[in-house]
Amino acid sequence: MKNHILIELKADADPSYISAVLKSLGLWTRSLKNSQNQIKAIEVLPPSIQIDSTLIERIEGVASVLGMSSPHPKVDQIAFKPFQIQKTQLNHPQQAPFLIAGPCSVESEEVAYQVAEIVSKANGKWMRGGAFKPRTSPYAFQGAGEIALKWLRASADQYGLSVVTEALSESSVEEVAKYADVIQIGARNMQNFALLKSVGQVHKPVLLKRGLSATLEEWLLAGEYLLSHGAEHVVFCERGIRSFDPETRNVLDLGAVALLKAQGLPVVVDPSHAAGRRDIVMPLLKAALAVGADAVMVEVHPNAMNALSDGAQALSALQLNHISEYMHDFCEKQKSLSINAPDFNRKEEKNG
Amino acid sequence: MKNHILIELKADADPSYISAVLKSLGLWTRSLKNSQNQIKAIEVLPPSIQIDSTLIERIEGVASVLGMSSPHPKVDQIAFKPFQIQKTQLNHPQQAPFLIAGPCSVESEEVAYQVAEIVSKANGKWMRGGAFKPRTSPYAFQGAGEIALKWLRASADQYGLSVVTEALSESSVEEVAKYADVIQIGARNMQNFALLKSVGQVHKPVLLKRGLSATLEEWLLAGEYLLSHGAEHVVFCERGIRSFDPETRNVLDLGAVALLKAQGLPVVVDPSHAAGRRDIVMPLLKAALAVGADAVMVEVHPNAMNALSDGAQALSALQLNHISEYMHDFCEKQKSLSINAPDFNRKEEKNG
Amino acid sequence: MKNHILIELKADADPSYISAVLKSLGLWTRSLKNSQNQIKAIEVLPPSIQIDSTLIERIEGVASVLGMSSPHPKVDQIAFKPFQIQKTQLNHPQQAPFLIAGPCSVESEEVAYQVAEIVSKANGKWMRGGAFKPRTSPYAFQGAGEIALKWLRASADQYGLSVVTEALSESSVEEVAKYADVIQIGARNMQNFALLKSVGQVHKPVLLKRGLSATLEEWLLAGEYLLSHGAEHVVFCERGIRSFDPETRNVLDLGAVALLKAQGLPVVVDPSHAAGRRDIVMPLLKAALAVGADAVMVEVHPNAMNALSDGAQALSALQLNHISEYMHDFCEKQKSLSINAPDFNRKEEKNG
Amino acid sequence: MKNHILIELKADADPSYISAVLKSLGLWTRSLKNSQNQIKAIEVLPPSIQIDSTLIERIEGVASVLGMSSPHPKVDQIAFKPFQIQKTQLNHPQQAPFLIAGPCSVESEEVAYQVAEIVSKANGKWMRGGAFKPRTSPYAFQGAGEIALKWLRASADQYGLSVVTEALSESSVEEVAKYADVIQIGARNMQNFALLKSVGQVHKPVLLKRGLSATLEEWLLAGEYLLSHGAEHVVFCERGIRSFDPETRNVLDLGAVALLKAQGLPVVVDPSHAAGRRDIVMPLLKAALAVGADAVMVEVHPNAMNALSDGAQALSALQLNHISEYMHDFCEKQKSLSINAPDFNRKEEKNG
Repeated sequence: MKNHILIELKADADPSYISAVLKSLGLWTRSLKNSQNQIKAIEVLPPSIQIDSTLIERIEGVASVLGMSSPHPKVDQIAFKPFQIQKTQLNHPQQAPFLIAGPCSVESEEVAYQVAEIVSKANGKWMRGGAFKPRTSPYAFQGAGEIALKWLRASADQYGLSVVTEALSESSVEEVAKYADVIQIGARNMQNFALLKSVGQVHKPVLLKRGLSATLEEWLLAGEYLLSHGAEHVVFCERGIRSFDPETRNVLDLGAVALLKAQGLPVVVDPSHAAGRRDIVMPLLKAALAVGADAVMVEVHPNAMNALSDGAQALSALQLNHISEYMHDFCEKQKSLSINAPDFNRKEEKNG
Repeated sequence: MKNHILIELKADADPSYISAVLKSLGLWTRSLKNSQNQIKAIEVLPPSIQIDSTLIERIEGVASVLGMSSPHPKVDQIAFKPFQIQKTQLNHPQQAPFLIAGPCSVESEEVAYQVAEIVSKANGKWMRGGAFKPRTSPYAFQGAGEIALKWLRASADQYGLSVVTEALSESSVEEVAKYADVIQIGARNMQNFALLKSVGQVHKPVLLKRGLSATLEEWLLAGEYLLSHGAEHVVFCERGIRSFDPETRNVLDLGAVALLKAQGLPVVVDPSHAAGRRDIVMPLLKAALAVGADAVMVEVHPNAMNALSDGAQALSALQLNHISEYMHDFCEKQKSLSINAPDFNRKEEKNG
Repeated sequence: MKNHILIELKADADPSYISAVLKSLGLWTRSLKNSQNQIKAIEVLPPSIQIDSTLIERIEGVASVLGMSSPHPKVDQIAFKPFQIQKTQLNHPQQAPFLIAGPCSVESEEVAYQVAEIVSKANGKWMRGGAFKPRTSPYAFQGAGEIALKWLRASADQYGLSVVTEALSESSVEEVAKYADVIQIGARNMQNFALLKSVGQVHKPVLLKRGLSATLEEWLLAGEYLLSHGAEHVVFCERGIRSFDPETRNVLDLGAVALLKAQGLPVVVDPSHAAGRRDIVMPLLKAALAVGADAVMVEVHPNAMNALSDGAQALSALQLNHISEYMHDFCEKQKSLSINAPDFNRKEEKNG
Repeated sequence: MKNHILIELKADADPSYISAVLKSLGLWTRSLKNSQNQIKAIEVLPPSIQIDSTLIERIEGVASVLGMSSPHPKVDQIAFKPFQIQKTQLNHPQQAPFLIAGPCSVESEEVAYQVAEIVSKANGKWMRGGAFKPRTSPYAFQGAGEIALKWLRASADQYGLSVVTEALSESSVEEVAKYADVIQIGARNMQNFALLKSVGQVHKPVLLKRGLSATLEEWLLAGEYLLSHGAEHVVFCERGIRSFDPETRNVLDLGAVALLKAQGLPVVVDPSHAAGRRDIVMPLLKAALAVGADAVMVEVHPNAMNALSDGAQALSALQLNHISEYMHDFCEKQKSLSINAPDFNRKEEKNG
């Protein structure tokens, strides 16, 4: 986020006039005084909207505009640039959002093929599924391992799907890269810098989940690790942040999604993990689409009753079909209607 | 939230069978053992979906189902019951969401009439606006006071709008009640129990904003205070919770909205205060509609440049028109399309 | 907190030299560049230590130092000024910390006298106790009301104690002021600005509890409300902030206590409410004393079994005696030993 | 934490009597009713104190007590068991707390020897220092690498200190293990399960820092990973949790330290990282000792001005000497005085 700047005033400037103009531009400001209590500079604070600094330089009384250089230049470079991962397009303003689905963990070859069929029928583009699972307890099921990668790959290939799966360990990155089209970094590993470097080095696209209490800046910097070590693409995945309420597992931060989209970055939303409960997956998925996600990712299982992990949030084939229909309608409407209302800060001049 | 129950098992029950069935119903469980390490009871944990306990009683091996009595019986009574506040309908499954808009504070008679006209043209139903403002600093503008209530009322009347405005102090409740159709309780006063009682006693509808770090349970109990002291209706208003990221002022918790809607309660969403920045108001508003809000509430000001408080998030008349168009399209689509996809936990039996 | 300043550099300054000097002074900095990518100014960030700006002005290459004027001038005025509330001294660097104790709520005259005796025997100076109780549920015991104020006053008088009790409602402020020596503002009312104004106007000392998710800045501004409306003294009371862990009710933020003490403000710590469980009251109380609290406040009840509210954290008479002994030893040691180690940022020059 | 249990009542039990007894024991409870609204079971909630379930079984009317089996049996096994790491004793009720100190990162051989001398003179027992540094930005200094491990080892050996240093990557665990006496797991890697397994397998003692938003349960389960994969010892290190206030980098959660100590586990406190600012390191260190930490860990640097990372919280040699003196006095007092006041829940029977 690059919205922290400082405005130095000319000796004869009218600080209250300049403050009022800045406010009208949507900026949050703080005045800085010298020891004679005169306002000599105005700081623009982080909650402000992004703005081109040349606009500010033109305000009467402004001497100069100072800013910080971006801490994540490589992330900035991918902003507003569409790209392709196999058959799917990301980060294009006119693209239709797509569906990513699959089981929490790939338990058997049979389940892999069943799920791939379900995902394909629901018009999903990527199949997700864990071969290696990060589990809070050492005694919980840790995933079927390499064999699950093979099942994933084979079943996805049969139905023409891309594969996204998590790399948990530096030592298995090469192996995961052999089978996956997109490598996932899980929330608990978002600041596992050794893993970020290893994954970057295999030059694959990466789905980077946000850490449980990561700031946007930390998330973008984790993306910078991946890109600066060679990742082909980075897609950010919001999956809920930790908060104080016991009713949901996490709080889905759609404001963060809106901010990253406003900065031109590719974002996927995972409502299943955020909710941790099946009954609010659908409304949160609708919200994620409305806010502009490039894709949504949900858990699906042919037989929720036998799912070995995270069963309470997994959806059935029938439920996935409802999502598919909803997404189809959503995309149709998006084409025909005013769903792409103007961006409130940049385009008004054209309309007004 | 009433989803905390306990299932006692029969002596000859198969706990793993029962756990599997419960999991397949979308419940989170925890097994409880006696000193011989045998599972004698299973607890259903809060993140679970709501379920009718008679369903559980029918599972083989279940001896009895114990639950907690609800701590908020009056809130439970309003669940799934549509009601009318003047010309607007709330809490009806087929209703169209409506728009609430107005300035942060009502600064002058002129502004009141200008805003009322803007809101009316944008098809808004309620006009919001502060006569008394809760300000973090004692030196910030505290609102124009009683005169602003009169401006609000008169301007709203001219354009056929309902008025919602905040009561900040027990001593001004009567006065606010004289001019307002709906009394707002602000986030900082959600647990100001003296105010809740006073407001309840004037028998008006109340818009109850969620506290900055209030759990859903605390929010519902604040609603219980209002209803048990006489409030005619309570409408819950999500406006963002406090979190750790400096980029946005608050985190809009749409999962909470989804949960309250799933329990049949009327919910309004305020994306302006959650975001604290104009550029993400529109995407968050779209998300709020998608998740099922009864209404959305935004700040609007005829001249953002002169707005005396919270200017950085206030929208212009033109921007409000875009919202209006978007909402119109949204409602049209809702009628014709699959936007009301089935609830993932209750209706599958019918479809499947 | 006044540690946000901006340093403008001379045209020929060496920014890396200046940054290094600032860092060595314990400051966190951020460089601001103009469009030619030259560092023209350095910002000092909030986590920095407090520092006299004239020190910075003397660094070679610094053109000027800009700062913000304090948003809470009246709070700043009480900094480092000792004062007396009846028999107790607060905010004096050499004072001994004192004990505040009493029941959560004053249930009966008998309990009031029993507790007053217990508190007095434990060398407590202030007796706390609720006549009006802020309860999350409208159906929970709300306190005995005005009669409890009389019991409190009479029992405290008999044992020579000062009385601190909460005002919950504007309409009862006068009544509370008649009986209390210190008026308490509860955590849920920290931003109930109408109450802050009413309480300020009775010109009494106030114990201001920190809100559940209040920043230090918001807390100080709440103090500014009280002082600017006439409060005689404000004493800040840390009682734990809301966080994500279910094991404790709140997280006691002793870093906040350290920061307020470093700024010369009077601070009381309430480990009972922070913990919400009796077993860690004692270690947290020890920690509060170690960090420099002016006083500690605990709940005590002659018969925990019959306490009508918050029983799980109330201490017995015997336990209060252990605290009393510990505090006595602590004060003795404080006199004789190096417990008042030098402040790490200001006094080294003298020692070095 | 094992304090979640369920109490089943006999048919003729008096639930209110049982509730009152449980409350008097310091337990938080919730009543569970059957469909006839009769209380048939009482749940004991997590905030309750630890209690032996046989005490509950003896209450009149109680039919049985059900509990959960511990999810972390190996952590439970080390509870209340003193152990030795080289010259230091941990987890012994009568031990004196010791000092761990060193630079954030070991930049040069010269600095390593200077620091080792400083630490040794301050009576420190372990020398800490980073060879590999986890940095939020890929462009920040990442540590000097293996050569720094050699400097650390050699300088510590010269002054008779143990070495604790962080392993960041599975691939460097063997190397770190060759030079370190204790391997540190950093906060960002607390749930890097691949790293936990690798570190466990080298059979060394481990210092496990708490994740930025880890619950106590998650922290203990991370310890379970280490122990179940072979770690010789696990020492828990509290270093602050993420919260909403911008004034400090983190909130030091001393309640968590108290809870872990109450469960008999070895805990180190790192006030430097929690504070992120030098001026409150000393008060937080005092608090950590008061709450019962086995050791405190601080950053020290011979020349703060040239420290390449985290300089704003590093202490000087002189400041470390003050800490050393304070700790010496603290230990002396601990021997002679009532500083070890009784545990408020278990020992009263003996005293009463």
